[in-house]
Amino acid sequence: MNSILNPDRLLGSDSAVRQVARGLYESVAKLPIISPHGHVDPSMLVKNEPFANPAELFIYFDHYITRLLHAEGFGLEQLGKQKLAGGTGVQAANPRETWQILCSNWHLFAGTASGYWLTHEFATLFGIDQTPSAQNADRLYDTIAAQLAKPHMLPRALFAQFNIELLATTDDPCDDLSAHQALAADPTFSGRVVPTFRPDLYLDPRANNWVANVDRLLETAGVAGRNYRAYIEAIENRRAYFVANGAVSSDHGVYEPFTTLLAQATAAQLFDQALAGTITPANARSFAGHMLTEMARMSTNDGLVMTIHAGVYRNHSSQTHANFGPDTGHDIPVRAEFTNNLRPLLEAYGMHPNLTVILFSLDESTWGREIAPLAGFYPSVRIGAPWWFLDAPDSAMRYREAITDVAGFYRGSGFIDDTRAFLSIPARHDMARRVDCAYLGRLVVDGRITLEQAQQIAVDLVVAVPKKAFKL
Amino acid sequence: MNSILNPDRLLGSDSAVRQVARGLYESVAKLPIISPHGHVDPSMLVKNEPFANPAELFIYFDHYITRLLHAEGFGLEQLGKQKLAGGTGVQAANPRETWQILCSNWHLFAGTASGYWLTHEFATLFGIDQTPSAQNADRLYDTIAAQLAKPHMLPRALFAQFNIELLATTDDPCDDLSAHQALAADPTFSGRVVPTFRPDLYLDPRANNWVANVDRLLETAGVAGRNYRAYIEAIENRRAYFVANGAVSSDHGVYEPFTTLLAQATAAQLFDQALAGTITPANARSFAGHMLTEMARMSTNDGLVMTIHAGVYRNHSSQTHANFGPDTGHDIPVRAEFTNNLRPLLEAYGMHPNLTVILFSLDESTWGREIAPLAGFYPSVRIGAPWWFLDAPDSAMRYREAITDVAGFYRGSGFIDDTRAFLSIPARHDMARRVDCAYLGRLVVDGRITLEQAQQIAVDLVVAVPKKAFKL
Amino acid sequence: MNSILNPDRLLGSDSAVRQVARGLYESVAKLPIISPHGHVDPSMLVKNEPFANPAELFIYFDHYITRLLHAEGFGLEQLGKQKLAGGTGVQAANPRETWQILCSNWHLFAGTASGYWLTHEFATLFGIDQTPSAQNADRLYDTIAAQLAKPHMLPRALFAQFNIELLATTDDPCDDLSAHQALAADPTFSGRVVPTFRPDLYLDPRANNWVANVDRLLETAGVAGRNYRAYIEAIENRRAYFVANGAVSSDHGVYEPFTTLLAQATAAQLFDQALAGTITPANARSFAGHMLTEMARMSTNDGLVMTIHAGVYRNHSSQTHANFGPDTGHDIPVRAEFTNNLRPLLEAYGMHPNLTVILFSLDESTWGREIAPLAGFYPSVRIGAPWWFLDAPDSAMRYREAITDVAGFYRGSGFIDDTRAFLSIPARHDMARRVDCAYLGRLVVDGRITLEQAQQIAVDLVVAVPKKAFKL
Repeated sequence: MNSILNPDRLLGSDSAVRQVARGLYESVAKLPIISPHGHVDPSMLVKNEPFANPAELFIYFDHYITRLLHAEGFGLEQLGKQKLAGGTGVQAANPRETWQILCSNWHLFAGTASGYWLTHEFATLFGIDQTPSAQNADRLYDTIAAQLAKPHMLPRALFAQFNIELLATTDDPCDDLSAHQALAADPTFSGRVVPTFRPDLYLDPRANNWVANVDRLLETAGVAGRNYRAYIEAIENRRAYFVANGAVSSDHGVYEPFTTLLAQATAAQLFDQALAGTITPANARSFAGHMLTEMARMSTNDGLVMTIHAGVYRNHSSQTHANFGPDTGHDIPVRAEFTNNLRPLLEAYGMHPNLTVILFSLDESTWGREIAPLAGFYPSVRIGAPWWFLDAPDSAMRYREAITDVAGFYRGSGFIDDTRAFLSIPARHDMARRVDCAYLGRLVVDGRITLEQAQQIAVDLVVAVPKKAFKL
Repeated sequence: MNSILNPDRLLGSDSAVRQVARGLYESVAKLPIISPHGHVDPSMLVKNEPFANPAELFIYFDHYITRLLHAEGFGLEQLGKQKLAGGTGVQAANPRETWQILCSNWHLFAGTASGYWLTHEFATLFGIDQTPSAQNADRLYDTIAAQLAKPHMLPRALFAQFNIELLATTDDPCDDLSAHQALAADPTFSGRVVPTFRPDLYLDPRANNWVANVDRLLETAGVAGRNYRAYIEAIENRRAYFVANGAVSSDHGVYEPFTTLLAQATAAQLFDQALAGTITPANARSFAGHMLTEMARMSTNDGLVMTIHAGVYRNHSSQTHANFGPDTGHDIPVRAEFTNNLRPLLEAYGMHPNLTVILFSLDESTWGREIAPLAGFYPSVRIGAPWWFLDAPDSAMRYREAITDVAGFYRGSGFIDDTRAFLSIPARHDMARRVDCAYLGRLVVDGRITLEQAQQIAVDLVVAVPKKAFKL
Repeated sequence: MNSILNPDRLLGSDSAVRQVARGLYESVAKLPIISPHGHVDPSMLVKNEPFANPAELFIYFDHYITRLLHAEGFGLEQLGKQKLAGGTGVQAANPRETWQILCSNWHLFAGTASGYWLTHEFATLFGIDQTPSAQNADRLYDTIAAQLAKPHMLPRALFAQFNIELLATTDDPCDDLSAHQALAADPTFSGRVVPTFRPDLYLDPRANNWVANVDRLLETAGVAGRNYRAYIEAIENRRAYFVANGAVSSDHGVYEPFTTLLAQATAAQLFDQALAGTITPANARSFAGHMLTEMARMSTNDGLVMTIHAGVYRNHSSQTHANFGPDTGHDIPVRAEFTNNLRPLLEAYGMHPNLTVILFSLDESTWGREIAPLAGFYPSVRIGAPWWFLDAPDSAMRYREAITDVAGFYRGSGFIDDTRAFLSIPARHDMARRVDCAYLGRLVVDGRITLEQAQQIAVDLVVAVPKKAFKL
């Protein structure tokens, strides 16, 4: 541990609250990490190769970082994003130069979640106790690079060091899950790494290349026919394959959490129109909403937990998308609505004992107004943790303040890191635990719960709640 | 008073703030309770019979409680809800078993408003100083049950003990108000209990059984004819009857606070279509919006304060509604909009000196954005207190933070408990007073107001503000 | 400085936070004021005449003040608003009587931004250390009036005393900017006062008198022809004139920040329809949205920073508007949406290095959800400071809490006072500096940033950030 990290960080500025929060935090700080939703590439753990260099490790693939540098005026190609084929063929960045850009612009990250996580990672993994700057950039680069080659910095060593009890990845329904199988079969790796079924590109006719996706799905599933019935069967097959390979949840990223329930014949008709390219936008929306309800129906059979991540306008800059592809920092949240949108799904399956639907929203006004009340009645509904832009100290505190009055501490999902950045996993879970302890500490000092209640809740939020939410 | 209740609860975790808040709270803690909007059954006070048992008293009719237990997987029939005729005829719950469910699942209520209120009630009324649990459930049941039979626990004794200066009920326009008359005529009861005119089911053609409701209204009012003019006259008659029986306000619960002003002939035409069952949904919405404006017009004549409670999707689960009826925990808030929706009403009557419209919203983003600015200009508009899901410590604090910058302390409604749970009334008012004192304490410490200002405001929020808002 | 002003006001109630915040505040308290957006009348500085009396100075033109008094029941004519021609010809108020109304109702302003500012102004400019009241109203009036005649209270003396480095006004595109020219040419006045191009009334065919406005614009610009091409040329001419006279930004006040990009021919057609009065409302909206995009295009040429102020229903009470005109306290905020609305503009020009668009919102839910993510990717987008109803202590703190997690401290606009009330400028900037220091203090105590980072940020927020945002 390092001097730049205040051991009491995020435990509340008030001394009475901090004292209680510190005690609570000490009881959960070293508990194992349960990560039931994220985007780590499982092949990283299969290969178990050293990380290439500090820039690739911390910048190139972290669109939290690149977006703020892009806003400051740096081109994504300077930040390690490869221009796509058909682009102008700019070479990938020089890692040391990209690193210099980050360190020289460290002030941009002050107060952000990214800055907080990187500070934590630099200090705990590399013993860095300085604020990055133009002056020390090269030295920090060398410090980090020197350690990346060492055995304790290999992915599997970190997996053990991070004390990860379960790590879920996010996977294409046509993925053969060979990486997961390799890990499960490897006697030298004892970690639990499970896939997650993420079918967005197959459920919404408005998705890029939907027809080709569906054909690939039918082929992968080995289902004969090219109609709605075959399509449904293919999805069910692939879900079964994921379940057999350890999956505990399906994940659904949508612009809006719109659901509807179509008659079988209508759905079949719209499916044919979508294949033929003649479906109207309104009908495509209906079909996508129907398929979300179908996912709930399948969950009542196979038990996969549904996570719905709603409220993002993806690829807002078409120029950037054309040049650099998706996940390059220009996904922008929008207003969300759950009360009306989710009702058809809940009317159909909301009382089914096998169903769990976890609602993640980027529109925090929906936390207390819609999601907590839904989760406070329907046994199937749970409140997703603060996510993406909202997975940060102030917003994580607002999350507790928004939902606790209404739904207490036991209707949530547990913390979800949702990250591609493997090294950031401990920092993120630690942040969530600290914020929760600070909130609990305030409730104790404010006479709203007893210290004994707070002690139990602090542990439950880390262990019992995610295990129940994800049926672990 | 009891050890489980921190005497400084909700007064702020910061010691400087708490010290000021404590002084403010001491000056208002024992002031009488003014409850100008709620749902207590007046016949309870007429009959003045002992409460049946702890489960009936605290669980069966409190949908705040039953909904969280339902979310945990308990059926509503286990929680004392009677299945409606046509249902499966399940018997009502065994009260001791239901009580056991509550105590065994007490952790679900930690941090919620319900948990806070029950803790307050258990401690102050029954001397309970333990956290409920599976282990002590039976003992707590017996402790409470033993006292329910005693004279000091009869409704009228509690009414006096609670120091209730005024209690408003919520009543159907066709109600004969005999309970209110009985109380008013009873020389042994000195409390003031007034009815509230709640005409939702008669104003919106989309309401269940609207035609039958209208016919009953015409008959009750003794108005000849079955047309728009008779309908308006019948409503005016019933309002006059309520005024004569002490009513000070009419209450309007709506999905959206939509208002419009139709020409007389158009309104009459839509009324006939609604009676004939031929009205379109859009026209039904217009008619309902017109009738809300009509309520404002009538208020300019008879002086009833209008309270508009907006933004709920009622009976979200049709299965639960069919089995157990309304008010069973599955009313879910939605986004609200006031600036545009309310304009037709305000254009017509917003400057009338006789009109007061109090806007209650479950969409807290509207508090600062729309309601406070409206109340900060129109003399007729006031900001409704945090309500329902938002009547809780964190959200009550956000309410002050949202409206005070914009509209100060004198454009609100005063606290409204809005409750069916008679025993919770002191806990709720006490909570509101504490939160307000904590907010005022912070403003004093932060140099935004003087201590003298805070002292005056703390008292005014409890007495002068509700009296002015409800013309008491 | 005076005893009624707590020197630590707004620096946080927590003692640890306050101690850090105080140190930060001391380093920025005396820095010059940069005011790149506001509504001060430049002729006030040209004429440099004494202010007439306390009521005219503090009440008549401050719709923050008059609206709350109006809500309490006072007529605007009692508050110094002149009824417009065609009205009933009521005389302007007696200033001493209006002043008495303010002081007698001082409790209405407790906790409001207006109350805070006036307290600051009374104390720092007039040495008043008493809370205004009915009793001391006359004395305060005399105290203030006595000083208004003195040389140090003349506008130019105050400009110097306030340490204003730059003051931007807001001006009609047809304004000849003679006041600005007079100030620039005056060797005895060394302040920098720049105009701002505010073309709303010329861009939206739904604006009052749009046809007459366009004709005046064409005439003022000296452009031949009465068609879309001439109209565009006229706007470009007037922008060039403003740039030549020192303007750094154009300002756009809109109900919704809707943008679109029409084909030249379509725009020309809609322009002709608008002139002919035959344009549909939907097409008028399209044309206005197209012209907002055109403003961005022009900015890529002439470099004017665009400020977009979105989300107000102006002149909500048509009766008040008819009697007293605009800006009389009944502009009411509405929900806003930026992610979709702004996309056409950003698709067209969002990556242009010459473009800066600063987004101001009265819907604070958009700060973190939409604006900060947009500004965290697009180099052209910046997050406007809390504005109008939100330019107040609690909401200014929420602004930092909403945007910092997502976008840090360097994607904002810097503070904007946006005021007509010249005397309130120091109070407003001081408030913003204090709130920012309190937020930074909390981040330091909470271990999120170092004290060194906070010290740099505190200064940058006052100097570097607005200078970069407005290209000063």
